[in-house]
Amino acid sequence: MELTAQFQQQLNALFAANQFYTQPSDCWVYGYDNSRKHALPNAVVFAHSQEDIINIVKLCYEHGVPLTARGRASGTTGAAIPLKGGVVLSLERMQTILQADATNRSMIVEPGVLNATVQAKAKEIGFFWPPDPTSSPYCSIGGNLACNASGPRSLKYGSTRDNVLGLTAITGTGEVIECGVHTTKGVVGYDFTRLLIGQEGTLAIISQAILKLTPLPEAKRTLRAFYRDNVSAAQAVAQIMSQSITPCGCEFIDGNAIQMIRKHANADLPESAGSMLMIEVDGSSGAMAHDVELMKKAAAHPGLIDLAIAHNNEEAEKLWAIRKSLSQALRSLSPHKINEDVVVPVSQIPTLLAYTEELAATFDITIVNFGHAGNGNLHVNLLVDPHDPVQGPKAKACLNLLFDKVVALQGSLSGEHGVGVEKRDYVNKELSPASIALMKKIKAQFDPKMILNPDKLFPLT
Amino acid sequence: MELTAQFQQQLNALFAANQFYTQPSDCWVYGYDNSRKHALPNAVVFAHSQEDIINIVKLCYEHGVPLTARGRASGTTGAAIPLKGGVVLSLERMQTILQADATNRSMIVEPGVLNATVQAKAKEIGFFWPPDPTSSPYCSIGGNLACNASGPRSLKYGSTRDNVLGLTAITGTGEVIECGVHTTKGVVGYDFTRLLIGQEGTLAIISQAILKLTPLPEAKRTLRAFYRDNVSAAQAVAQIMSQSITPCGCEFIDGNAIQMIRKHANADLPESAGSMLMIEVDGSSGAMAHDVELMKKAAAHPGLIDLAIAHNNEEAEKLWAIRKSLSQALRSLSPHKINEDVVVPVSQIPTLLAYTEELAATFDITIVNFGHAGNGNLHVNLLVDPHDPVQGPKAKACLNLLFDKVVALQGSLSGEHGVGVEKRDYVNKELSPASIALMKKIKAQFDPKMILNPDKLFPLT
Repeated sequence: MELTAQFQQQLNALFAANQFYTQPSDCWVYGYDNSRKHALPNAVVFAHSQEDIINIVKLCYEHGVPLTARGRASGTTGAAIPLKGGVVLSLERMQTILQADATNRSMIVEPGVLNATVQAKAKEIGFFWPPDPTSSPYCSIGGNLACNASGPRSLKYGSTRDNVLGLTAITGTGEVIECGVHTTKGVVGYDFTRLLIGQEGTLAIISQAILKLTPLPEAKRTLRAFYRDNVSAAQAVAQIMSQSITPCGCEFIDGNAIQMIRKHANADLPESAGSMLMIEVDGSSGAMAHDVELMKKAAAHPGLIDLAIAHNNEEAEKLWAIRKSLSQALRSLSPHKINEDVVVPVSQIPTLLAYTEELAATFDITIVNFGHAGNGNLHVNLLVDPHDPVQGPKAKACLNLLFDKVVALQGSLSGEHGVGVEKRDYVNKELSPASIALMKKIKAQFDPKMILNPDKLFPLT
Repeated sequence: MELTAQFQQQLNALFAANQFYTQPSDCWVYGYDNSRKHALPNAVVFAHSQEDIINIVKLCYEHGVPLTARGRASGTTGAAIPLKGGVVLSLERMQTILQADATNRSMIVEPGVLNATVQAKAKEIGFFWPPDPTSSPYCSIGGNLACNASGPRSLKYGSTRDNVLGLTAITGTGEVIECGVHTTKGVVGYDFTRLLIGQEGTLAIISQAILKLTPLPEAKRTLRAFYRDNVSAAQAVAQIMSQSITPCGCEFIDGNAIQMIRKHANADLPESAGSMLMIEVDGSSGAMAHDVELMKKAAAHPGLIDLAIAHNNEEAEKLWAIRKSLSQALRSLSPHKINEDVVVPVSQIPTLLAYTEELAATFDITIVNFGHAGNGNLHVNLLVDPHDPVQGPKAKACLNLLFDKVVALQGSLSGEHGVGVEKRDYVNKELSPASIALMKKIKAQFDPKMILNPDKLFPLT
């Protein structure tokens, strides 16, 4: 597409010179995200205020120009890629924290504030905001809201959707809507707040959020458990989730991951280790000794080889070292891996893991699984280059079967990364035609000209 | 309205004789709820299955007949009243618990299952479902979902919306949609699950719900604190909510309530008591001693007169006796009281309480406040008969000002009771015309013939 002279003239009139790009060379870097996909926008606009958002949406609405909102583009699904060109609206400059309030346990932020900045500010008043994606230091709250981000801690504290009280958003016509409340309860009107979380900028653009804060726990303990094999660890996870203490993290790595760490990282691993769990409990300092005992009991299993407990930060860091060396090992071994993000009921983890072994054998692909096992959220990593002419199609066929299995196990295609363009074409495996049709009708109410982040979230046909 | 002969014929063909009423005398009791409002439906249909729901919705859709879903009608806002007649669809016979699963922390239920039945079943496997309205023994899950019910425990564990993973629902055209997931995470498609919680049967009729269960805490402790006056107690609440332990209950009763208990109940009250807090903490048994100490510290205030701590159930019941005698005292003193359900940020409780005193003086009405102070959710009770020709209009004028104040304090008109017909005409104080217009458009997508629970939730004009 091309922007008309009239559009460009109006853009000039509405925004200061330092608030937009129209040169392709300038726009280029705003065309990609962490999916490594790219599409060149015709213009990039930097909002400094809600008024700016309203102005650009109204302008795009008037001219029917596609508009794709963008945080820090750390998402992995291509949700921030301007597939149809048009305007990329960057919210990275809207970085004001408007209020941080301990008594009301809330913080009001603009969308460009980084997750890590929110955490730092919350910490000052004794609180935290639960969503903790690995990208926390460089991902924005707007992005977290767009894809309903979570992280290890969401096992106990919920994902983004569970930790937002209210939103202000601009619909596809440029209208401002205020959703939700400033309080922890409220039942007036339909719940637009949660509807707008996870919508990836396809319904409205969020200009402000009221985050729900949680008190920092007084204490935390870390346990590391090695198991003989995947099944033993998966059964231990089921035991852990069936009892009375909810861990604040229950991270799993499978046998293949252990092998990789053994080969590619200088880590001290028990010889017979065939999988690993990292379990964390937090809460009242009075509870720690008792809760660690309960967790030890729950983690016990005939397949358990070694259990280590950290009593302070330094010891905890040592226990985490093996888990953290995995990312490095994966990157060096397979820089172009496909990292999937499926989720199944906790009781189905063993079935899913067995199935990935089958798939690995059938397609002759190395598959490494790790993830947030307490939620059943597994990152299934296919160590192939998706752009390779042989491996690419093989991987696609493999993923197709994986997704069928996940849905058959009553799971979901994405636990925390979202849909964007990467999983768009698989969504009808999970959602019925009736649901998709209704969702598209809902989109048409928020965005009647269908300008907001077109061609995302749903299959094109 | 009247049902056509053709409609009645089809009704006869679709349902067994014991599944519907059309005689006004039979239908009569299905025309009221706990709001004491009444409207006579033309027919009452009892669904035994999802198929029954689909059939009656399709029939009503075909003929444009209003359809109002009904659980146990314990709601106080008139949400279950068939204002335009037509069919009342009772879900009370759909009482099957389809699955209760500890490992996946979920329970799948039909809408007619009682809240108390869910709690009992969950308890068997070591869990509970957080929403705990006072009506728990006789209210249904369908009703809880319809109005986003909560209760004291929601302070720590959230309301209905925070404790449901997925739903199956029938839209106003009779189409089945499955929303949400069987897992604790999932970000595929728009969040219809939360959109359908709190919609009071105006968008779709819920035929099945996947409830998210929480492990039963090992231990609980109860604290009772008397304060000199309302402000002291309200400031203590702010202190309690600012620190690191979240109580599982923080119930407040004000000075007028104390006076009533003194006069009308045989309770042992400190002479200078001018308000009271009931505070509960729960969790790991290892944490209790420590957490009670923290709570004692947080509850401390120059206005604190007496603090008692229960160490077992028997002692706890004694502490609760005074709070429980309040309902009895209120009922005997003012059988027709108006019980409002406003919510304000915790820091604004003192301002709201002071304002209710002003209103009481201005309108010469006795106002008694109590409620879930940790959420800022106050039940403001006007001790008047709303049907009295003098007192009724006075109360209405008083409520109007109360609601203005609540919204000005960034609060909400309803914390847990919902809107129904009672608060319908005040909703535009809280929601903007743009929001209401968009919500109505969303309704039209789910319910294009506007047959589902007409004239509820939004102002008529």
